[in-house]
Amino acid sequence: MNETIKLQLAHKTVRKFKEEKIQEEDINTLLEVCNRTATSTGMQQYSIIRIKDKSKKEKLTEIATQGYLENCPELFVFIVDVFRNKKIAEELGFKGDTYKDMDRFFQGFTDASLAAQNMTIALESMGMGAVYFGSILNDNEEVCNILKLPELTFPVFAVGFGYPDQEPQIKPRMDMKLKVFEDEYKVFENYLEEVKEYDEEMTHYYDTRANGQRSDTFSKQVLKRFEDINEKRRNVMKVIEKQGFKIK
Amino acid sequence: MNETIKLQLAHKTVRKFKEEKIQEEDINTLLEVCNRTATSTGMQQYSIIRIKDKSKKEKLTEIATQGYLENCPELFVFIVDVFRNKKIAEELGFKGDTYKDMDRFFQGFTDASLAAQNMTIALESMGMGAVYFGSILNDNEEVCNILKLPELTFPVFAVGFGYPDQEPQIKPRMDMKLKVFEDEYKVFENYLEEVKEYDEEMTHYYDTRANGQRSDTFSKQVLKRFEDINEKRRNVMKVIEKQGFKIK
Repeated sequence: MNETIKLQLAHKTVRKFKEEKIQEEDINTLLEVCNRTATSTGMQQYSIIRIKDKSKKEKLTEIATQGYLENCPELFVFIVDVFRNKKIAEELGFKGDTYKDMDRFFQGFTDASLAAQNMTIALESMGMGAVYFGSILNDNEEVCNILKLPELTFPVFAVGFGYPDQEPQIKPRMDMKLKVFEDEYKVFENYLEEVKEYDEEMTHYYDTRANGQRSDTFSKQVLKRFEDINEKRRNVMKVIEKQGFKIK
Repeated sequence: MNETIKLQLAHKTVRKFKEEKIQEEDINTLLEVCNRTATSTGMQQYSIIRIKDKSKKEKLTEIATQGYLENCPELFVFIVDVFRNKKIAEELGFKGDTYKDMDRFFQGFTDASLAAQNMTIALESMGMGAVYFGSILNDNEEVCNILKLPELTFPVFAVGFGYPDQEPQIKPRMDMKLKVFEDEYKVFENYLEEVKEYDEEMTHYYDTRANGQRSDTFSKQVLKRFEDINEKRRNVMKVIEKQGFKIK
């Protein structure tokens, strides 16, 4: 097994970092890795907002309700960005409005996600660790305000990173046989039966976050997630529309 | 510079593959890498359809209008999958319908994208090459039919891979200074001016696909993309709605 795959199979989320700053040279390498990532039809419809301002970090922490966000030495917000290409097209005389299509939004969403994951592998290969914050979408409209996002842009998630000050356990995952199918989707008879072993495994998993507390089964976590309603998150399409995309 | 980053900075899309089959053992390693990727709130809301059936591959090739799709030794379609967790929740007695929220769709979309990019790095580290096919979304509804995708699932893209039978040039990218901002979004005065050098560079880039033909400037490619209207792609939200998500 090669070093890259060893690294990937050892991935875990890091939520506690040393105060050690990341060298600008390393940041530049990470940005180069982002830039080299595959991008839909070459259009590069994503951008990154690097958060340095303390008060902005505080605001994002409040939104995410995850206190450790504030202590990430680096915090990059990845965004869908169709704005830049719209400007380019308009400067070339384009008069249409196809840049509003949700199809382009999804291209940008994909671009941002691929670049972020590529960056995560790169920084892990340099001895750093990372945490994804989907939780900044708890108030996606406010994130647009805080980052002064223009029309045709939208936050995807943030990635916090730095040198780890903890060694989390590897978190168990559901067997791939429930997630990989041949030629067509496979529906199982009884899902609780299928995830039984995984549920069991999860109860024995001690997340370092929880000070050794036992975890719920995966199934119960799923249930909790569906019961947990955040009106701002579930109404995400309204904000996407407000940002100038045509959702119908 | 470590091996992983060297690999990442050398990334290029491969569109022509040797006939050599990928060992099942290697496929399993790649699936393990997918499984270890970060996933939104641990929910693992994505799945993979591995296409082996020749007629399905042909149909997907027709949709993508990229003939080389058919010759990819392996073809994985990554999908948003909230269906599995809905079933789990219902078997536990859940009566709500929050699984329809677009927020969950986006979580699944992120999960699928991160896993795919992680897989791409892994297979490149093993000497293989890959190509992303966003083009299967040219007829996203038909892809749902072909793969028999149940409610609450949706195709994100396909990844074709195998051992490269070509050595493509590295494709130039727009400078990161146009894509990375500090603390808030930065709007430039004149975008054509900003991308001028990049435009120049692109005209000198000979893509191996094009038999040494000169490329358009990036700006002109952007314009063409916005002028190129595909009704099925732009109406993607209708199909997402048809798949059971609540888009408003």
